[in-house]
Parts: sequence; structure tokens; C-alpha cells
Amino acid sequence: MPQPDFRLSSRAQGLKASEIRELLKLVGKPSMISFAGGIPDPALFNIGLFQRACLHAFGGPQIAREALQYSTTEGYAPLRQFLAAHMQALGVPATADNILVTTGSQQALDLIGKLLIDPGSTVLTARPTYLGALQAFAAYEARFAGLDTPQPVGADAPRLVYLTPDFANPTGLTMGLAARQQALDSARALNAIVVEDGAYTALRYDGAPLPAIAALDAAAAGSMETMRTLYCGSFSKTLSPGLRVGWVCGPAALICKLTLLKQSADLHTASINQLVMHQVALAGLDAQIAAIRSVYRTRRDAMLAALQRYAPPGLHWEKPEGGMFIWLDLPAHLDAGALLDQAISQDVAFVPGAAFFPDGSGRNSLRLSFSLCDEAQIELGIFKLCALLGRQSLSRAVSVH
Amino acid sequence: MPQPDFRLSSRAQGLKASEIRELLKLVGKPSMISFAGGIPDPALFNIGLFQRACLHAFGGPQIAREALQYSTTEGYAPLRQFLAAHMQALGVPATADNILVTTGSQQALDLIGKLLIDPGSTVLTARPTYLGALQAFAAYEARFAGLDTPQPVGADAPRLVYLTPDFANPTGLTMGLAARQQALDSARALNAIVVEDGAYTALRYDGAPLPAIAALDAAAAGSMETMRTLYCGSFSKTLSPGLRVGWVCGPAALICKLTLLKQSADLHTASINQLVMHQVALAGLDAQIAAIRSVYRTRRDAMLAALQRYAPPGLHWEKPEGGMFIWLDLPAHLDAGALLDQAISQDVAFVPGAAFFPDGSGRNSLRLSFSLCDEAQIELGIFKLCALLGRQSLSRAVSVH
Repeated sequence: MPQPDFRLSSRAQGLKASEIRELLKLVGKPSMISFAGGIPDPALFNIGLFQRACLHAFGGPQIAREALQYSTTEGYAPLRQFLAAHMQALGVPATADNILVTTGSQQALDLIGKLLIDPGSTVLTARPTYLGALQAFAAYEARFAGLDTPQPVGADAPRLVYLTPDFANPTGLTMGLAARQQALDSARALNAIVVEDGAYTALRYDGAPLPAIAALDAAAAGSMETMRTLYCGSFSKTLSPGLRVGWVCGPAALICKLTLLKQSADLHTASINQLVMHQVALAGLDAQIAAIRSVYRTRRDAMLAALQRYAPPGLHWEKPEGGMFIWLDLPAHLDAGALLDQAISQDVAFVPGAAFFPDGSGRNSLRLSFSLCDEAQIELGIFKLCALLGRQSLSRAVSVH
Repeated sequence: MPQPDFRLSSRAQGLKASEIRELLKLVGKPSMISFAGGIPDPALFNIGLFQRACLHAFGGPQIAREALQYSTTEGYAPLRQFLAAHMQALGVPATADNILVTTGSQQALDLIGKLLIDPGSTVLTARPTYLGALQAFAAYEARFAGLDTPQPVGADAPRLVYLTPDFANPTGLTMGLAARQQALDSARALNAIVVEDGAYTALRYDGAPLPAIAALDAAAAGSMETMRTLYCGSFSKTLSPGLRVGWVCGPAALICKLTLLKQSADLHTASINQLVMHQVALAGLDAQIAAIRSVYRTRRDAMLAALQRYAPPGLHWEKPEGGMFIWLDLPAHLDAGALLDQAISQDVAFVPGAAFFPDGSGRNSLRLSFSLCDEAQIELGIFKLCALLGRQSLSRAVSVH
């Protein structure tokens, strides 16, 4: 019998595998120096804290049954209260009603797309931007445009402005106060919703924290209910990504609608994971953030120093104030995809920049993550990469002559 | 500042809260005899097995880091292999490539809807059917039609046929072999995909198991790759719903596309939950199924006996061979919604039948779940409910006179 040719939805027509995720499968071998994945160093997980929190969740029949049973879609009440207080500390006057616990902050992006995007709706993003956001919104057939592109108001105005103001994935760039304010003003003029991705905010290594866009918005709008920012938060870069616990914070009216969409998406985020994450966050979020900041700061500095030492002429990068990434602009004639093949053969991996552009531009750029390697590996990997780049620039210089 | 009036997607226009989920929030008080939730009795969870599996997941730094780290979208390889073997035991010749681990089987329904449904696409279902399936498909603007309604072939043919062949939620009914075969033949004629929901299959109390539709399909089609059934499986009714671990099994080509959609929906199902569920299923799935079957069989029999003893004339129900539900048809003039208000005031809860019909019909029907109450509670609750029903029938009889 032949394979049936099923009719897929129009949103499923363009489905293709993410280069990054496919790549990450290849770079698992132990000798590889991987600057590819934007993932935390598992050696920094506070395993003891998670183990104790699991024991707590099985500390008696009542709590164990709660951990193993269905729970409400909105999320575990003590965790929502913790997260409301966390948002208050960021300057956002949230209560538990403004919080929906999600299955990782990726699910928040998916639900927001589902709530707001019709086929052809415009989403404004930085270019480049987080691949997972592009994928989540593309699944609802969004059209993407850069933040600076002039936009119509009214019915065809953009529905969403997606921003990662602190140490963005993939560029490492931070939006200044004026840029945050301007993005908010422009979203207001368009009647668009701002999706603020706070995944990396806790990982600041230099300089003073800047206010969250959600905080600026709430202050100007006068209340949670009149603001237009949906703040997506994550424990994945601080405590653990493997538990898939994130949250979205915003006006209760929008949180209610997102809750209904979550109900049909996965009923609720795993009960035990919420109990455990609440315990771990309560007991050790601040200490964990302090600990990993210190390690990642050292690694960032090691990568910056190695680039300074080994980079051939024509490379450009900026020092990120936090996060996990350094973005490298290569001379215009170089192709990061081709470079990756050579780099992998020398046991160094990164992600070609084109993956982070909705239109596949950015071929002469790449993303380096410094979160996973120690300083010696970072120096060796950057040395190898820069040597490859030096040879490529040279061979080009020769062929031009 | 006034509350902004955001433009929502067309799929979000009709969002409304599920009566069942809202109701379940009200019936938590200890004195309530709840026949409402279709949820497992938490007293039957094998807490020790989950506790040991958690300890195993923290048994050393390497496995603990795996439990807490990001993992692949497809799912934890040993769990996929376990599930492939589980499907083989059901007569479906699956390999791990035919399995996607999902965040509960609700997510499988959501991803299937995302893959296959365009606005206006027809989904065929039993009437009544599982509310969560209606919600998942409605979020992609599906149109619903009953299984017996004549359907066009070609471009306007139904995309999906959703079936729960064993002890369906909410009716408790089982499809016979001929009905399974006929549903498959009709899906083949329409080139529709069959979504087989196996949530309750393990909970059989009488009679011999019938082949899964996926097994009939694979046998007739000759291979996994030429079949048209997506089988959605769940640990929620056997081991624990709170971990949100389910799966979908089908042709690898469709599993690949569902995997891409899952990537943008939540990256992957929580790593530690997959490790733990694999351990628990390996150590105790069969014993757990045997244990809960025996308890639920007794409760089903207690509810049937109480109905037999106390039901006023004009009620209709059938004996379910398994699952968690008995469906009650009331005399045509009665409204189960109005009855519920009275019942709750007497500390008895159920779900009005209209919730399970896409068009709100079925007002004179209701769903009783026998999974959560012991036999004494069941007898008392059914007695109270039948007394209420008897008075209603009587008052109607009087008013007609």
C-alpha cells in the first residue's frame, strides 16, 4: 500500500527542522568544544537542592498525592505567589492573578502566538532574534518585520513586538533605557502587545540593571490591567531547564485567555515540577544566581580575551553585559555555514547566524555561547576558530589578487 | 488609562471557560461526593515507586544532570523504546521512530490539530465526546460533525476522525470490532487520519480486549508507514496524571512533523519526568494496572447496583466494560444543568452532558465518574441524586396534570 498523502494545515506546509536543534544532536561527542548550544552548564545545577525538593514532594501521602495528581491550569498557587513577588522585585506590581505558569517559557511564546496571530499578522522583532520565538510565531503563519521598519496603524498594524531587552539571544545586546521606552511608545502607537522575554535578565555580569519594559509599561499605564506587556520568565537559565517551568505575567484579562488556551494545549504544567521548582526557588534562587553569574562572567571574559588575542582583522563583536552569547560579524565574503563544516572537523561548534534571521540573511555572522566550556576550552576553541577564519580571509585575499 | 482593546486572532474570538474545569474548582470541599472529575483516585498512586524513581534520577551527578538539563524534542530514548514495545503488545509494530513523547496526551491532541486542521476543516467525533479533544481541535477552528453524518470526499472531506474505542469519556461505551473496522474503512475512503485515544484502554473490568484501531490499520496497511492512525497514549489514568507524560504513535513521517510542532510548543517534555516515568513504568505498570482495575471494578459495580436500586423510572444507562464513567440519559424534560445546582447544594457533583457535545445539545444527560469515591460514598451519592431526580420527575408529572 502506498504511503497516504494527507492534507496538512496551511501552517504545517512550511515545517522544516531547526538547524540548531539538528546541529545540537551532532555536537554531543566528548572531544567537541561546543559554543553552539545556548544551554546552562549542567555542572552548575544545584543537584542537592532539587533532590531535597523531591524528597519534600514525597514527604507525606497528602503532598505526594498532590504532586502526582492533576492540578489547575493556572498553576500551583504558592508558585504563582512567589512569581508575583519576583515580578514585584522587577518593578511590576503583579499579583498571582497576573501569572500563568507555563511548560517552559517556550510555551508562553506559543500560547501568545495562538492568542494573537492570524495568518499574515505582523510580528516585529530584532534582527537577528531568538529562533524559538520565530518558530512559535511562524507556526501561526506570522509575517516578520524588523523593529525599525515603518508600519501601518489600524487593522494591518503589527500585533506583537517581541523583545529580549537584556543580553539577547543571539546577539548578547542590551537595550538602553531610551530604546526600551521608545519600543513601548511605538507599541502603544500601533496598539500592539509587547512580548518581553526575560530569559537572561538574571545573568548580568557588569553594570546596573535596567528596568523591565513591563515595569516601565505598568508605571506609565497606572495598573497591571491597562498595560500591554506580556513578560515571559524562565528558570531554565538559572535553576534547571529540564523541569520545563516558566511563566507569563501580564494583565489578568489576557492571562485568563492564555489560561484557556493552555488548557487545551497540555491541561497544566506538571504538578510535581511546580512543587519542586517552588521549593528550589524559595530555598536557593538568589544564591544560585550569584554562583552561576560568577562562573559565566569568568567564561565571558575568557572568550573576549581569546577573541582579542587571536581574531584576524575584519571580525567584529561587542562585549555583552550578561547572558550566554557573543555575536561575531565576519567579513562580508565569508559564509558561517561553510565555516561550521570545517570547524566541526576540528572539534569546534557554533551556530551560523542565518538561523536567527527570519529571511535567512546574516550568512556572514555566527553565535558563540560561552556558557558550557571552561576557560581552557574557550581559549583553545577560539584559537582554532580564529585560525580557520584567518586562513579563509587570507585565501580570499590571495584569490582577489 | 483605559484597558487597551487588543486584536485577538480569529481562533481566540470564541474562547470560553470549560464548564467542567470551572466546576472542578468548586467541588473540592471535603464533604462533597464528587462524581464529576474523570480523575484517578490519588489514594491509588504508587507513591513509593515514584519516590524510588526520583531517588534513581538523583543517584549520581551524571544522571541528575541529564534529569535537570534540556533534552531532545522526540523524547527520552529508553522511554520511547519502552513505549514502542508497549505498542507492539497492543498489536502495533512500532519502533522508537514511531513514538513522540508528549506533555500529556492532551498535547498530542493539540499538536495533531495544529498539524492537520485549517479553519473550517471537519473533524468527525462520537457525540458526545471528550471535551479536551473538542477544545484542542476548536482552537484551530475545526468544524465538528458526528460519525454517522454523510461527508463529502475530496478537498472538503474531513481531515480527522477522533475515536476513543475503549470505555469512552464520557459515555463509557466500547466500540465493537465491526465498528472499529468500519470507522477505519470510512476514514480510508475519506483519506482522513484516525486519532485513536487510548486513555482508558488499560482499565478493562470485563470481557476480552479488542484490537486497537491502530493495530487493525497497521495489519491492513502492511506497515507503520502506510497506516493512517495516530494512537494517543497516556499514563494519566494508570500511573500519574501530575507528571504530564503521554505519547503519540504513528507513521514516522507524521511523527517527524509533530516533533517539529512540539519543538515550537514547549521544546520537549520535562526531562526528569520522562526518566521517572520510564523507571516507574518498567518497575510497576502491570502491577499498578492490576491493582487499580480491581478497585475501580468494585466501584463501577457499586454505582451500577445503586442505580439499579434507587433510580426512578425514565432513566437510562449502560454497563461500561471499563474506564471511569457511566452516562445517564434523563427523561427529555429534565435539565442536567439545573439538577447540578440542586445536587451541589446536597453535596453531590457530576458533569452535565451538554459539556461533551460540540453544539451544546444533550441537556437531559449527565456523566457520572465512579473513580474517586468509595462504595459507601457511591451508594449515598447515587441515592441523593436519584431522590432529586425522582422529585423532579414527580413535580413534572404533577404540573402536567
